[in-house]
Amino acid sequence: MSDSAGKEIDQLISLMAKLPGLGPRSARRAVLQLVKKRTVLLEPLARSLTEVAATVRECAICGNVGTSDTCGICADPKRDTNVICVVSDVADLWAMERSLAFKGRYHVLGGVLSALDGIGPEELQIPRLVTRVKKGGVPEVVLALSATIDGQTTAHYIADQLEGSGASVTSLAQGVPIGGELDYLDDGTITAALKARKTF
Amino acid sequence: MSDSAGKEIDQLISLMAKLPGLGPRSARRAVLQLVKKRTVLLEPLARSLTEVAATVRECAICGNVGTSDTCGICADPKRDTNVICVVSDVADLWAMERSLAFKGRYHVLGGVLSALDGIGPEELQIPRLVTRVKKGGVPEVVLALSATIDGQTTAHYIADQLEGSGASVTSLAQGVPIGGELDYLDDGTITAALKARKTF
Repeated sequence: MSDSAGKEIDQLISLMAKLPGLGPRSARRAVLQLVKKRTVLLEPLARSLTEVAATVRECAICGNVGTSDTCGICADPKRDTNVICVVSDVADLWAMERSLAFKGRYHVLGGVLSALDGIGPEELQIPRLVTRVKKGGVPEVVLALSATIDGQTTAHYIADQLEGSGASVTSLAQGVPIGGELDYLDDGTITAALKARKTF
Repeated sequence: MSDSAGKEIDQLISLMAKLPGLGPRSARRAVLQLVKKRTVLLEPLARSLTEVAATVRECAICGNVGTSDTCGICADPKRDTNVICVVSDVADLWAMERSLAFKGRYHVLGGVLSALDGIGPEELQIPRLVTRVKKGGVPEVVLALSATIDGQTTAHYIADQLEGSGASVTSLAQGVPIGGELDYLDDGTITAALKARKTF
């Protein structure tokens, strides 16, 4: 890529290029920026990555990432233990947290069921969810899964598995997104929003 | 950004967001990817950054980045010492190297003259270039500067400074880029290409 700069820098470029959102060209730009801003960016980033690599782990209860065995949410006594929100991965958990709308706890599945990719219930944290709900006598499980075919298949499967556990299973409402213009919405969303219409 | 994930991860996200090409949202995605691919991506990247932070330095001769006092190009006995290519920064040097068309040595200015940004000749490596050319009795200097106003001002200034040094000063040809369609070219490029027309 740039024989002239030495193999350490070439290796850094090829590693950076593996990050989502960066390709070979932007990785090169990023590395040049790092080298230019050595004390304010390169060294802090090197330290930060080393620290995270040494401390990061999965929460033993919900599967969130954190720096202790139990994540900040599961360890927080102010969070409602009566409701578990099921998400497919940590990015979705963070998105839910940013909304500040949910005060319960989470369960990260680690993906969604997918026959095509050979992902069955055993590959996901579904059995652990069922055990967690039954053992804890959790009254409500909110399914916050994507409105895709795989997401909805997973939702139905989980609802089936939780039958008889005593938990009421709910899912996020589907409809017109806030700020969404009807003109730009897909037919599926409009159909869903119409079916779920409410008195105004 | 994500209170739930611990301050080490938040800090990593905010550092990653400072890289060109990444914003807060894509930095979050990149960090999640890093955490997921701990052994194949996070740990190698942490090691690589630490190594580069410890070893990277500017070549004492040309200003290229490298991992020793003299960069790979200046240390290479096969490179032609009779021609120096002047570039504004290391990204441009790497671009020249990728073309495999230049076999001489480089001189990195560290920017271009800019009255607006208060960048004068002393802020750039122009005096060092002049000394290098005069001392070494270099017969040719190729100016590979951007075809912008600041780039061309810098080129003219350098040509002035090198007058009487015995070096012939050339610059990259301007014209229609390879694969470029006339229809999409700006007027300035067409004018330059027409002025510099050659017998076919």
